[in-house]
Amino acid sequence: MTKSLRIAIAGLGTVGTGVVRILQEQKTLIAERGGQIIELVAVSAKDKKKKRPITLGDIKWYDDAIKMVAESDADVIVELIGGSEGTAYEVCKTALMQGKHVVTANKALLARHGIMLATLAEQKNVTLAFEAAVAGGIPIIKALKEGLSGNQISKIAGIMNGTCNYILTNMRERSQDFAPILKEAQELGYAEADPTFDVDGIDTAHKLALLTSVAFGVPVDFEAIYKEGIRHITLDDIRYAKELGYKIKLLGVTSHTQAGIEQAVYPALVPDNYPLANIEGVDNAVLVQCSAVGKLMLAGPGAGSLPTASAVVADIIDIAAGRRNFVFNRPVKTLKTLPALGMDAHVGEYYIRLHVEDKAGVLARIMDVLGKHKISLESLLQKPAKASKDVYIVGVTHATDEKRMMEAVQQLAKIDSVLETPHVIRIEALQSA
Amino acid sequence: MTKSLRIAIAGLGTVGTGVVRILQEQKTLIAERGGQIIELVAVSAKDKKKKRPITLGDIKWYDDAIKMVAESDADVIVELIGGSEGTAYEVCKTALMQGKHVVTANKALLARHGIMLATLAEQKNVTLAFEAAVAGGIPIIKALKEGLSGNQISKIAGIMNGTCNYILTNMRERSQDFAPILKEAQELGYAEADPTFDVDGIDTAHKLALLTSVAFGVPVDFEAIYKEGIRHITLDDIRYAKELGYKIKLLGVTSHTQAGIEQAVYPALVPDNYPLANIEGVDNAVLVQCSAVGKLMLAGPGAGSLPTASAVVADIIDIAAGRRNFVFNRPVKTLKTLPALGMDAHVGEYYIRLHVEDKAGVLARIMDVLGKHKISLESLLQKPAKASKDVYIVGVTHATDEKRMMEAVQQLAKIDSVLETPHVIRIEALQSA
Repeated sequence: MTKSLRIAIAGLGTVGTGVVRILQEQKTLIAERGGQIIELVAVSAKDKKKKRPITLGDIKWYDDAIKMVAESDADVIVELIGGSEGTAYEVCKTALMQGKHVVTANKALLARHGIMLATLAEQKNVTLAFEAAVAGGIPIIKALKEGLSGNQISKIAGIMNGTCNYILTNMRERSQDFAPILKEAQELGYAEADPTFDVDGIDTAHKLALLTSVAFGVPVDFEAIYKEGIRHITLDDIRYAKELGYKIKLLGVTSHTQAGIEQAVYPALVPDNYPLANIEGVDNAVLVQCSAVGKLMLAGPGAGSLPTASAVVADIIDIAAGRRNFVFNRPVKTLKTLPALGMDAHVGEYYIRLHVEDKAGVLARIMDVLGKHKISLESLLQKPAKASKDVYIVGVTHATDEKRMMEAVQQLAKIDSVLETPHVIRIEALQSA
Repeated sequence: MTKSLRIAIAGLGTVGTGVVRILQEQKTLIAERGGQIIELVAVSAKDKKKKRPITLGDIKWYDDAIKMVAESDADVIVELIGGSEGTAYEVCKTALMQGKHVVTANKALLARHGIMLATLAEQKNVTLAFEAAVAGGIPIIKALKEGLSGNQISKIAGIMNGTCNYILTNMRERSQDFAPILKEAQELGYAEADPTFDVDGIDTAHKLALLTSVAFGVPVDFEAIYKEGIRHITLDDIRYAKELGYKIKLLGVTSHTQAGIEQAVYPALVPDNYPLANIEGVDNAVLVQCSAVGKLMLAGPGAGSLPTASAVVADIIDIAAGRRNFVFNRPVKTLKTLPALGMDAHVGEYYIRLHVEDKAGVLARIMDVLGKHKISLESLLQKPAKASKDVYIVGVTHATDEKRMMEAVQQLAKIDSVLETPHVIRIEALQSA
């Protein structure tokens, strides 16, 4: 084997060091599978002195990633800096303009600039690959582009943020509130000091935007995504959901209907028999609904050094082996913009929890409001609230549309005996999957 | 788009008609994703008059598949006849010798002749693809060869026979015996009139032989597989397993240890929190344990017309798009034969059920035999048997090796009060996954 593929890595954090480790530890296997020796020729990171669990030997070091891209004769630039702008953006853009292949784990960057970068990659006839950007070690991008290539995809629902899944799983299993579990997740390194991207659904939305484009042949449209995080999920909600036969999971859901594309991130009740219901802790899973296969689920670690690095290395090996596909599964100019559906058009079942005074006639008034909006209940619980004279009324509706549901909720909030804004959580059931 | 890839299909049964349907219904999508028009130029089957849910129009018909291969100018022969010998074998061999790509769903054929056919494909520099041969619509071959290409794989455990999973699921859910559920599965078309291949584990073993080769870089070795089916699983076993927190599943398990390769098909108790435990009915799932990702599970339909056809079409699109890999994940001449480990070397936990006379001292004698073989129990149940003076003693052992376990079982069988050959079922737990 005399041919070799030259790699330069920009960014030596958790994923970057994982990539170096895999390239070094599995050198022979990777060369056999890719048909070429993979040669790591340069790396860049801000602080050369920082302790890292890798040996770099005579691999050329750059403090400046942009300088590395400009000077290096690498065939492939691996971008693992992160962030949607700045250095990461410059590195990818410059590398593609120079006709170098780019492999990245950067969902934020691609959610913002994916189409522009894909256009550049096509013009230069090079690969822009991002398996590691979505669901870490799970090869979902390859499954969508190649494994399911004979299928029309109609819907994808995924648990794609390990931090949120860890928090929700531990709230349920240990009966603790959001705040202490988040703090613990931060101490364990599962959550960032600023948890906004994770717990407010932005990270999931970045990933969902990429899946939507790959699955449906539409341009990446991060802005169109409805984003709702998990900060407002209470232990009470998790308990009542459990009693009703559901778990609460933060889902990214994208679907292609005749009316257009609905992309949304929200916490949802999923019934215990739903395929994603048993995905616990930091694990991720993606459920794909498609024309020939029906339902396919992939589950595994969605983050972490080696799992994410595995996806980066798989992309590199594809380049070495000459396996190509389109960045977003078809030529950029053939991506078709379809109507972005707002949540008003969403149809589904809902969980609603009302904190009310425990007095005669309240339930009747609630049922009256729901009835007037043609919303019927599949199940109903009444539970003691903290104050002894209050109760929680918890209901699960039959399928209805969100506009009507939200109008009913506004009316319910106006009832005197309703003491707080009603808690409403969407339900993602098998029939809707 | 002026280039086209010419396809001929040998065999128009369930899968063959599914392939025709997908190629026709998704013509545009497939052409876009493959970068070429896929043109179905010829088909063959024994009986032209048979009713099929497809329209063949002016596609050339052959009664004789071998004649079709000889005469047709197709670029790709799709072999969907089935069987390890005879026409299917001739079709694949002849097509490869003519330098045509071959796509097949035929696990029996590849389990027997895979290495020979792969050698031929390499000599002729064409593709021999078989995604559809393992776990139907689940793209597990692609995941192993490409998605996980940077990983050393250490173990695979799969539910890969929908018939068995349907039978075991329905025995448990509806408290019925094996025989009536098998009969029902036959009536529903989930099981063949002769169910041997399915219920005796041979079909699973065919698939496992292929996974083993792809995962571990060893030649296909179907003969080395230990094969145990599900005919001996009783409703009692399923009930006691449930009470102990397990389900019974027919697994194909292959693992690569320092000592060699252990390939086996057997019914196993899996704990309720094991990833494969929730795969029910005709669904399939494959759990892969690998160096960088850790555990990855793929789950979906393992059989059926369109799911299996989806895998065939994905292979065709890979050929159209020029995506290549090695048939068994590396050049045939670099496949390394490793020691085939017998079940004596198997280490794990065991479920054991003893039918005994309900009299003083029996349990003590049983525990004595186990103790002498250094086998300790993790849990123990005593249950009334059908005859009022008999009982079942049901135990779950801690991990032990199979040789020792089977010696203990032989000793137990000799105790006077033990009325039947003890029932022993392996346990597949998370720590062993």
